[in-house]
Amino acid sequence: MLLPIVGLFVSLLHAQVPDKPVTFDDIKASPNADWLTYAGDYKGTRHSPLSRINAQNARNLVPKWTYHMDTSRKLEVSPIVYGGLMYVTNSNEIHALDARTGRRVWSYRDDRSEISRVNRGAAILGDRVFFVTGDCYLIALHRKTGAVLWTKKYAETKRGYFATLAPLVVKDRVLVGVGGGDTGNRGFLAAYSASTGEQLWQIYTIPGRGEPGSETWSEKLIDWGGADTWLSGTYDPELNLVYWTTGNPWPDFYGGDRRGDNLFACSVIAVNPDTGKMKWYFQFTPHDTHDWDAQGWPVLIDTTINGVMRKALLHANRNGFFYVVDRATGEFLRATPFVDKLDWATGVNAKGRPIEVPGKDPTPTGNKACPGVRGASNWMSPSYNPQTGLFYVVTLEQCDIYVSSAKEPEPMKNFAGGGGELIPTQPGKFYLRALDPKTGKRVWDYPMTGPGTMWAGTVSTAGGVVFFGDDDGHLVAVDAKDGRHLWHYNAGQAMFASPITYEVAGKQYVTIASQTDIVTFGLFEPAASVPVLPGLKKLQ
Amino acid sequence: MLLPIVGLFVSLLHAQVPDKPVTFDDIKASPNADWLTYAGDYKGTRHSPLSRINAQNARNLVPKWTYHMDTSRKLEVSPIVYGGLMYVTNSNEIHALDARTGRRVWSYRDDRSEISRVNRGAAILGDRVFFVTGDCYLIALHRKTGAVLWTKKYAETKRGYFATLAPLVVKDRVLVGVGGGDTGNRGFLAAYSASTGEQLWQIYTIPGRGEPGSETWSEKLIDWGGADTWLSGTYDPELNLVYWTTGNPWPDFYGGDRRGDNLFACSVIAVNPDTGKMKWYFQFTPHDTHDWDAQGWPVLIDTTINGVMRKALLHANRNGFFYVVDRATGEFLRATPFVDKLDWATGVNAKGRPIEVPGKDPTPTGNKACPGVRGASNWMSPSYNPQTGLFYVVTLEQCDIYVSSAKEPEPMKNFAGGGGELIPTQPGKFYLRALDPKTGKRVWDYPMTGPGTMWAGTVSTAGGVVFFGDDDGHLVAVDAKDGRHLWHYNAGQAMFASPITYEVAGKQYVTIASQTDIVTFGLFEPAASVPVLPGLKKLQ
Repeated sequence: MLLPIVGLFVSLLHAQVPDKPVTFDDIKASPNADWLTYAGDYKGTRHSPLSRINAQNARNLVPKWTYHMDTSRKLEVSPIVYGGLMYVTNSNEIHALDARTGRRVWSYRDDRSEISRVNRGAAILGDRVFFVTGDCYLIALHRKTGAVLWTKKYAETKRGYFATLAPLVVKDRVLVGVGGGDTGNRGFLAAYSASTGEQLWQIYTIPGRGEPGSETWSEKLIDWGGADTWLSGTYDPELNLVYWTTGNPWPDFYGGDRRGDNLFACSVIAVNPDTGKMKWYFQFTPHDTHDWDAQGWPVLIDTTINGVMRKALLHANRNGFFYVVDRATGEFLRATPFVDKLDWATGVNAKGRPIEVPGKDPTPTGNKACPGVRGASNWMSPSYNPQTGLFYVVTLEQCDIYVSSAKEPEPMKNFAGGGGELIPTQPGKFYLRALDPKTGKRVWDYPMTGPGTMWAGTVSTAGGVVFFGDDDGHLVAVDAKDGRHLWHYNAGQAMFASPITYEVAGKQYVTIASQTDIVTFGLFEPAASVPVLPGLKKLQ
Repeated sequence: MLLPIVGLFVSLLHAQVPDKPVTFDDIKASPNADWLTYAGDYKGTRHSPLSRINAQNARNLVPKWTYHMDTSRKLEVSPIVYGGLMYVTNSNEIHALDARTGRRVWSYRDDRSEISRVNRGAAILGDRVFFVTGDCYLIALHRKTGAVLWTKKYAETKRGYFATLAPLVVKDRVLVGVGGGDTGNRGFLAAYSASTGEQLWQIYTIPGRGEPGSETWSEKLIDWGGADTWLSGTYDPELNLVYWTTGNPWPDFYGGDRRGDNLFACSVIAVNPDTGKMKWYFQFTPHDTHDWDAQGWPVLIDTTINGVMRKALLHANRNGFFYVVDRATGEFLRATPFVDKLDWATGVNAKGRPIEVPGKDPTPTGNKACPGVRGASNWMSPSYNPQTGLFYVVTLEQCDIYVSSAKEPEPMKNFAGGGGELIPTQPGKFYLRALDPKTGKRVWDYPMTGPGTMWAGTVSTAGGVVFFGDDDGHLVAVDAKDGRHLWHYNAGQAMFASPITYEVAGKQYVTIASQTDIVTFGLFEPAASVPVLPGLKKLQ
């Protein structure tokens, strides 16, 4: 006979999901225990006030759980967390997990989408979570059940658009952008009602014919010039401005048919989220021919620049300069090289315009230029710790051979006009680099030793730790003050995503996506002997 | 200027691989710190004398590293370990890893092979490691460098053969078998010189025409009747006999063209490894029509059966009976059901032959029979702990509807003659089950709660712990005495492999393959602050 000895139901493993919907004020106050928006906060600092995990005890970190995504697309998601549930996305799918155990609560997969793309994450407001599909559907689902509440197609794939970004929730609306600028389209930013999916406004990042800025384009390419909006933006609630960066002009590497600055490509734009009206823009790389999308995070801090307190916007650009801009006005304040391998410009002028070195443009036979095509940094998230006053950014020291094609540009024919090629004897070298925004100078460098083929982002904490994925599949913790190594874990796979940190039931966790897995770490504690199972049967 | 503060080279992360080659005596003495053969030891007990990890401290286990295999084939490998190096295989590839860190030391991939198959592991002798490719090449590589020393094609894919097993090293030779019996071929076992790859002998598991046993086959199918040898065997050095199990007769589910017992399908055969001569055989399921391959591990222990000390062979068969056979003579000693869902036979007679219940054979319209087609157990490794005297086996309680086809059998045309179909309202239920070989009775049961779609194997330790992969992606540790839950970890992926345990530099580890990853666990200790990297650079 079977005699059940232990038969407890393990309710411990199921999170108690709060009834309280997420408010705009909650997102403004984030991050604390939760992580409610892609970068943790509206300022894009990716800094958490949590300190249970700190520089003293980081050596006690261990993996807590792994959630595998059965995918051929590498994960680039930065999770969001609310009330013990974690939301992770991948191409055309979203999963809600118990943030303590990794157990799936619900999942949704859009099998209709014909386009598989990486996906960078979800957004949340009220009882709704939002994400985009590869073919530019914005989808709202119930945060507790995964029930689809509405879907909205917001761009046409036959006009060259696809989508990869985490939406940005501001007030009562959801902001989305587009990708696809490497094969020609016209970038835009749009806002949709969070409750109904109704479009509230849409603005293009390339001026219409005859509008101011249109003179920076040729007739031929103004409808297909790219300047895409493929990464989320940041937001200043007091100024009520959203800051969104834009991608390269198209064709990426051949500028002959688009003579001029190509506004607003390779820029940051400041937009009123109520109206969609652009208040100012700042272009980092006029007439870019190196594929230097401006998709580095615009990080918003208030600090003293040249003796004056400023509402600053920090931005580490693919072109190798670390910019400080006044975010109220768009006034250029400073740009300093944050890589040694920078030879395409000798500096910038008083307006922030690069002083270019001749002979660095792509040609049919190739020209060497630095940084390389992947940029001095890229879209992976930097972070800023207000206690150390340091800005942490994953940096690549590399030069490439840039070539251009004389072929006639044809939109949506996979034509980029050339490319950047690795110099085999000069592979790239990755660093986690700490910059001082007050001075623009580098303070410390953590060199990585991996194969130099991938990079991931960072998260900073009040525990005095910076976490980042290195270029060899490790999550690494270093001391925020001096970059001293504290801990690392070999997750066995390359990482292309940015870590987050959160707390559930008094315990702090750190999560990063590896190529196919969501991996969550916490401080070691001996396992409670709670079976995953109904329990043991003693026989006889 | 860059000022290097810390510049140490982290030699700690590189194992000191011993110069001493592996001897036959080493394998006979295994496992201790090393794990030198698929099941750990020749007896197939999969029991380790290591006890640093034990029932008291198992709750302090944490993942130590993960090694990702970029594969579409699920991993079924049981690693081997020698001198701090771990050897893992997958379809047509083998990797040598630092067993402490998961860092790859070398890897080899046979891109020539046209057949991708799961692979269950490597073998080692001298300075050579051995594995098989999907298309039946036995390959010897240098254990330190991965240099290929010799390759030997040992079966023809055009005769229906493929290979998945870990080779078995005995004395100076390497024994291999074949798969493919589900679509027709003729099973065999063969031995090759470890040093040269020269064939030493080959025996078929279906008698030749006119030979004893050939009367149990029809003329039509004797050349294609399967009885494959797709799992490794065990070995008794004193009796100098290798015990190898055989698969189903072909066609799997239609027996009309092969009336008779179909020797030596669904059997265990005892073979002299010097000569290839079969000393005895025991057939578990005569004239099988349920695809009940006998590929459960033959586990060799000396114990008292019915008051007499016996050199016993234990075997939990897919057909639902737990057998004890005298391994010196092949004499049948006992068979007891180890699942409740067993209705195809009322028991066995004095010779061990099942007493069949009519109406359980597959028919064109289907007949329900228990166990299901996956068997009451399968190839995943059981283990035996001499301290508790218990045999630990992952068990499936399930019935299926068995159907047969009247189609004419055609070898290598993907014809199995029918199949077993899941009854949707009656999904299978997995248990880790402890059996007492002295009595054949069940002692305790650990029920699993996963989706019931996969299973993994077990490893037992002198620390009083049984480790196993459950049916929901957890590695679980239970108390060997009573099955009490001690610890589990959610590795995020289904597991189809058997765990091992080993020791390097005074630390014990447990490793299991999940679907795509090799995951290694050890007792928690705070991380030493050793960067994975050359070190930190303080700037300015």
